[in-house]
Amino acid sequence: MIKPNHVFLAACRRQQTSYTPVWLMRQAGRYMEEYRKLRRQYGFLELCKKPDLAAEIAVAPVERLGVDAAILFADILLILEPMGVGLEYSKSDGPVIHHPVRSGKDVDGLKDFEPEKELSFVYDAVKKISKALKNKVPLIGFAGAPFTLASYLIEGGGSRNYVHTKKLFYTAPEAWKRLMERLTKLTSEYLNCQIAAGAEAVQLFDSWAGCLTPSDYEQFVLPYTRAVIDAIAPGVPVINFTTGTAGSLKHIRAAGGAVIGFDWRVNLDEAWEAVGYDIAVQGNLDPVTLYASPKEIKNRVAEVLRRAGARPGHIFNLGHGVLPETPVEHVIAMVEAVHEISAR
Amino acid sequence: MIKPNHVFLAACRRQQTSYTPVWLMRQAGRYMEEYRKLRRQYGFLELCKKPDLAAEIAVAPVERLGVDAAILFADILLILEPMGVGLEYSKSDGPVIHHPVRSGKDVDGLKDFEPEKELSFVYDAVKKISKALKNKVPLIGFAGAPFTLASYLIEGGGSRNYVHTKKLFYTAPEAWKRLMERLTKLTSEYLNCQIAAGAEAVQLFDSWAGCLTPSDYEQFVLPYTRAVIDAIAPGVPVINFTTGTAGSLKHIRAAGGAVIGFDWRVNLDEAWEAVGYDIAVQGNLDPVTLYASPKEIKNRVAEVLRRAGARPGHIFNLGHGVLPETPVEHVIAMVEAVHEISAR
Repeated sequence: MIKPNHVFLAACRRQQTSYTPVWLMRQAGRYMEEYRKLRRQYGFLELCKKPDLAAEIAVAPVERLGVDAAILFADILLILEPMGVGLEYSKSDGPVIHHPVRSGKDVDGLKDFEPEKELSFVYDAVKKISKALKNKVPLIGFAGAPFTLASYLIEGGGSRNYVHTKKLFYTAPEAWKRLMERLTKLTSEYLNCQIAAGAEAVQLFDSWAGCLTPSDYEQFVLPYTRAVIDAIAPGVPVINFTTGTAGSLKHIRAAGGAVIGFDWRVNLDEAWEAVGYDIAVQGNLDPVTLYASPKEIKNRVAEVLRRAGARPGHIFNLGHGVLPETPVEHVIAMVEAVHEISAR
Repeated sequence: MIKPNHVFLAACRRQQTSYTPVWLMRQAGRYMEEYRKLRRQYGFLELCKKPDLAAEIAVAPVERLGVDAAILFADILLILEPMGVGLEYSKSDGPVIHHPVRSGKDVDGLKDFEPEKELSFVYDAVKKISKALKNKVPLIGFAGAPFTLASYLIEGGGSRNYVHTKKLFYTAPEAWKRLMERLTKLTSEYLNCQIAAGAEAVQLFDSWAGCLTPSDYEQFVLPYTRAVIDAIAPGVPVINFTTGTAGSLKHIRAAGGAVIGFDWRVNLDEAWEAVGYDIAVQGNLDPVTLYASPKEIKNRVAEVLRRAGARPGHIFNLGHGVLPETPVEHVIAMVEAVHEISAR
């Protein structure tokens, strides 16, 4: 019998568990009244930089939802701030980079820094969360993958077509390489610092990889993602998460990770077969499902679990983050359904 | 030897051709100075409703680019206007539906109309384009697929998460069915009127299908797309185009069409294998490629053609529409590269 506090890690390692572990991307966020209350008092970046509050935010959903893992409260773009690009979280438009990187000269002008020193508020949050969790469930650290970080740096914010990003690797592949190498080094150091502070697994978010052709992913992204994953402290499971990459799954697998995270645009069994049953997987309920009735949510949870087929190495999650207006009771119903249906 | 004016239709029918035919989605559009000049004088909807101008816009790129097919100049949302939902093309936000459809009551309140009568300006444009083309290349008609039309009606415009759309089929499947049945009937009638006016092939745009799980596509979308395609005048090839559906290709194939259109997120050979080599395919260069150098464009055209492997039934196209800032000379270089490399 595996102790409940280890179910998530056991699944990452493809060991048999007595039920399927579940957590949710953005399980601490805007859909929770407690969080919205704090956000009325503090800016988003401010909350990330106050380890006490960040810890409070990260720990709250564990009790409330009954999930099998906590995740650090932070943002994938924090690592870009010390580079001197003018990161700002604007109220209306989401994150903005005031000095986007569009050339080799821009790449070389990025400030160098040591993640160990500059992002200590993140590691302080990790320590406080670990302590507050009292070893009840493991803590997941995270970072943006080099490609998604590069896209933000280059586009200067969210994007529809990623024209500047693709133009850089089409027309200045050497500048692209230098940028990706820097982001690779920073990201792996940043994750290892989170691990040193107490994170027991880490997730790499390559949320924008789905804008690429499979060949461009293979040539311009895969080597850097793999380098980050290869540099992570041995024994710590890495979750390699992307969205919109159903046509690139063999490359995603080749990029590495103990666990491959899927979005909802694939059937879990088919995607798992494509990456190989010899690796753990995470996913993949459509986040919009949580707006349906609890009965319908339960049916759809059962469908994902049916496709997982009780194989060892499945971590239940949404296919992307919890959406802002999601009813908390529906999230709780989902977590209960996963535990109930998967009990073995 | 096949006559040049029939290469596109021959490829739709999987006949051997002396080179691979090519056209581009949005080949008549914002990236062309001639078009931007007209747009400074007329609103978008106004242009669609002036058959003389619409014909001029549709015919111009055929000569200029050397493509193997013309496509009607119109918009997939025109069919929604007579339903009384308050369609407007706003300058900043794209299309807006002022009275979105969110319930069974809203569905039943939609105005009934006969596409044959209400959209006669479209058929007039088709006739004028056909005449101006002098049988040099075939003319493709088009419509939005029922799902993409329904999403616009329900969301009231563009969307990120399609929450209202999915909520309708989760919580009010009967209302969803009634809405989709109406859109199915209107769309097939509309396309058949375009064919009667002179369109020799038609493309069904299901541009938003990629937001769905494969199961939801199968249950809530596939039957209606198939019903539209089944109702099209016999012998006229239908191109079934979607984006972001790499995980649903077998369902896309089951929905029908003589040609399956792919976006750039899949390798053409793998996607073709997934839908079956016994059907024609269209695609699939990343539209952003056209910002690269003509040399790089040529390399990437060669790569798509290499994956097509000179099998009969490949129509070269982008994976989605031409982007606004694309240099016209790069489009011409692409078309030339397709013709040159594929000549056999």
